[in-house]
Amino acid sequence: MQIVGNKARGVELIEDLVGKNPLFVFTISSTKVAEVPGITVAGADPGLVKYTPAADAELVQYGKCRSIAGVPATPDGKPTPALITTTALRLAGIPHLIVDAGAEVKPQTPYIVVGAEGPSENIALKDAATQSTVERIFENAVSLGENLAKASDYLILGESIPGGTTTALAVLCGLGIDARGKVSSSMPVNPHNVKSSVVNEAMKRLNLKIGDLANDPLRAVASLGDLMMIAVAGMSLGARRLAPVLLAGGTQMAAVLALIGKLGGKLTEGIAICTTRYVVEDTSADLKWLVSKIADVPIIATDPGLAHSVKSGLRAYAEGFVKEGVGAGGCVLGAMLQSRFTLTQSHILREIEKNYENLIEKKLQV
Amino acid sequence: MQIVGNKARGVELIEDLVGKNPLFVFTISSTKVAEVPGITVAGADPGLVKYTPAADAELVQYGKCRSIAGVPATPDGKPTPALITTTALRLAGIPHLIVDAGAEVKPQTPYIVVGAEGPSENIALKDAATQSTVERIFENAVSLGENLAKASDYLILGESIPGGTTTALAVLCGLGIDARGKVSSSMPVNPHNVKSSVVNEAMKRLNLKIGDLANDPLRAVASLGDLMMIAVAGMSLGARRLAPVLLAGGTQMAAVLALIGKLGGKLTEGIAICTTRYVVEDTSADLKWLVSKIADVPIIATDPGLAHSVKSGLRAYAEGFVKEGVGAGGCVLGAMLQSRFTLTQSHILREIEKNYENLIEKKLQV
Repeated sequence: MQIVGNKARGVELIEDLVGKNPLFVFTISSTKVAEVPGITVAGADPGLVKYTPAADAELVQYGKCRSIAGVPATPDGKPTPALITTTALRLAGIPHLIVDAGAEVKPQTPYIVVGAEGPSENIALKDAATQSTVERIFENAVSLGENLAKASDYLILGESIPGGTTTALAVLCGLGIDARGKVSSSMPVNPHNVKSSVVNEAMKRLNLKIGDLANDPLRAVASLGDLMMIAVAGMSLGARRLAPVLLAGGTQMAAVLALIGKLGGKLTEGIAICTTRYVVEDTSADLKWLVSKIADVPIIATDPGLAHSVKSGLRAYAEGFVKEGVGAGGCVLGAMLQSRFTLTQSHILREIEKNYENLIEKKLQV
Repeated sequence: MQIVGNKARGVELIEDLVGKNPLFVFTISSTKVAEVPGITVAGADPGLVKYTPAADAELVQYGKCRSIAGVPATPDGKPTPALITTTALRLAGIPHLIVDAGAEVKPQTPYIVVGAEGPSENIALKDAATQSTVERIFENAVSLGENLAKASDYLILGESIPGGTTTALAVLCGLGIDARGKVSSSMPVNPHNVKSSVVNEAMKRLNLKIGDLANDPLRAVASLGDLMMIAVAGMSLGARRLAPVLLAGGTQMAAVLALIGKLGGKLTEGIAICTTRYVVEDTSADLKWLVSKIADVPIIATDPGLAHSVKSGLRAYAEGFVKEGVGAGGCVLGAMLQSRFTLTQSHILREIEKNYENLIEKKLQV
């Protein structure tokens, strides 16, 4: 584990959470930005991308997918990070809930409705959603977050929204942080040009310059963002008074963090971004820089040890593929903390490999 | 508080739960049985009955309704039991989640989808739902219950489904307990004839005698019941291995208890029916007899003290109106237990009256 940014506050938070009982809240969503060619590989076949959030939710809930055969993975066997998440949650007995913030395909699981209907629009062409949709989701999410915080010692908030780093980039730009060239990708060659061009088109469509929406975070989401962000930001705000919050994800959670701050949330103690080392060490992005522009909030990066895996599909995470998602880094941390570190990296890795064999390799052999 | 049935086990359970942190899970649903004239007054105006579950959910979530003006109440001011529930939850800081098991009107709140779509059909005319719908909800609810039990010390499971005592009666009959004349009503003159005639028609339609579905609980729900029952039974089964469960309601929860037993749930320790004294003292029904036919499970009856209220609309509860619903009795118990009895009957009653003034009387004056 490494702490980037405010190390003192990161250590304090971790010490505070040892042995505590978290709740993992997994928000799924879709944006039509994912349909822009070359922008994402979350889901190998472009036609399957829309199933990825639902399939991830099913894997977390039931240990297997229902909306698709097998598990989201590239043809050569690089699996969805939901495999890491579900392994960590099961090992530690950590409960979860799934929130639908506009997934195109709804999961065949229990899930919480917060007022989102369909996916967010492609921001290059039109607003992501109406302002009233964003406000409704925000209000529901705040109230939900308050209740979930009462039911747990702290919240781990993860997401699955293919194409979401592009909307994160756009919202960061709208709020005044020029994040072009800084957001992560699920591919080793980060398609910064494609992302920036979507964002530039969106800003041009709205006649906006960087920072023009710094004082209107809800409008930034409605015009440039996606519904995952406002759901997670709302839950965080509702929970913050009552329990610590781990924003479990990569550069998308930087956009959520910025929104929380703009929406009046305190960004001092009790909040951190938690991700995998593959994100903080990603030389094609800069999470540390992004967070430093927002607030003095620590980034906690866990290491699931995939670099040493016997499975090439898992080693790929350390080679620039996938890297993070579905709150994987945060759930690994939660499992280690809840178990008071009796669940070690090698223990978790062994179990991830076992699940990989059962869920991916057996299917590839068929 | 009084304990009916297995007193020793009731006392043991209560002692076990003092100071613990419950989660209230509120399941809303609709059955077209509610449209049978004279069967329910859950919602004063027949045209408003379909809004009652959603309005109850909104009152619990936000302290005010959104789908209707004001609060569900009869024209002379007898309020929905959601008023008691929300008061108890807020006083004690108990978290809640709302589950939609086929409410006709969806609430303007966060709520959990478990695979139900519309309301259950009128069982006199056709099956309540398809077998596959019932199986899907059951499986989702079991998995949900497991997760919710991990996130709390115990679950309080309440419901709102106008017309639900009639489907409870039908399912009890299908499972082998002739409950005719024994189920409660929200009215002082219990329309047993209307209920029994719906059930007799349903049994005749299916060519069933009492007890014919004793070995097929899922079919009993699909043909004679409603989707609330299977959602609550499923959550109970999922939770049971991990945490105690309070079935918070009147005679409808007897049907749920019978289903839990038939579906393989242990009905020994860690489970109770929890309701108000107005239900256990209801001379037009017999909850004690019903439960005794199912299992040796205690009934814990709380007294919110409404008999002594200065408000006639609240005193009506002690005069045979409304009596229970929305897990009111269970939430009062949960509040007292969580506060280690520092929240007393008079404290809770005072707060209920204050909320009654703000939500009902002010509206009646307009």
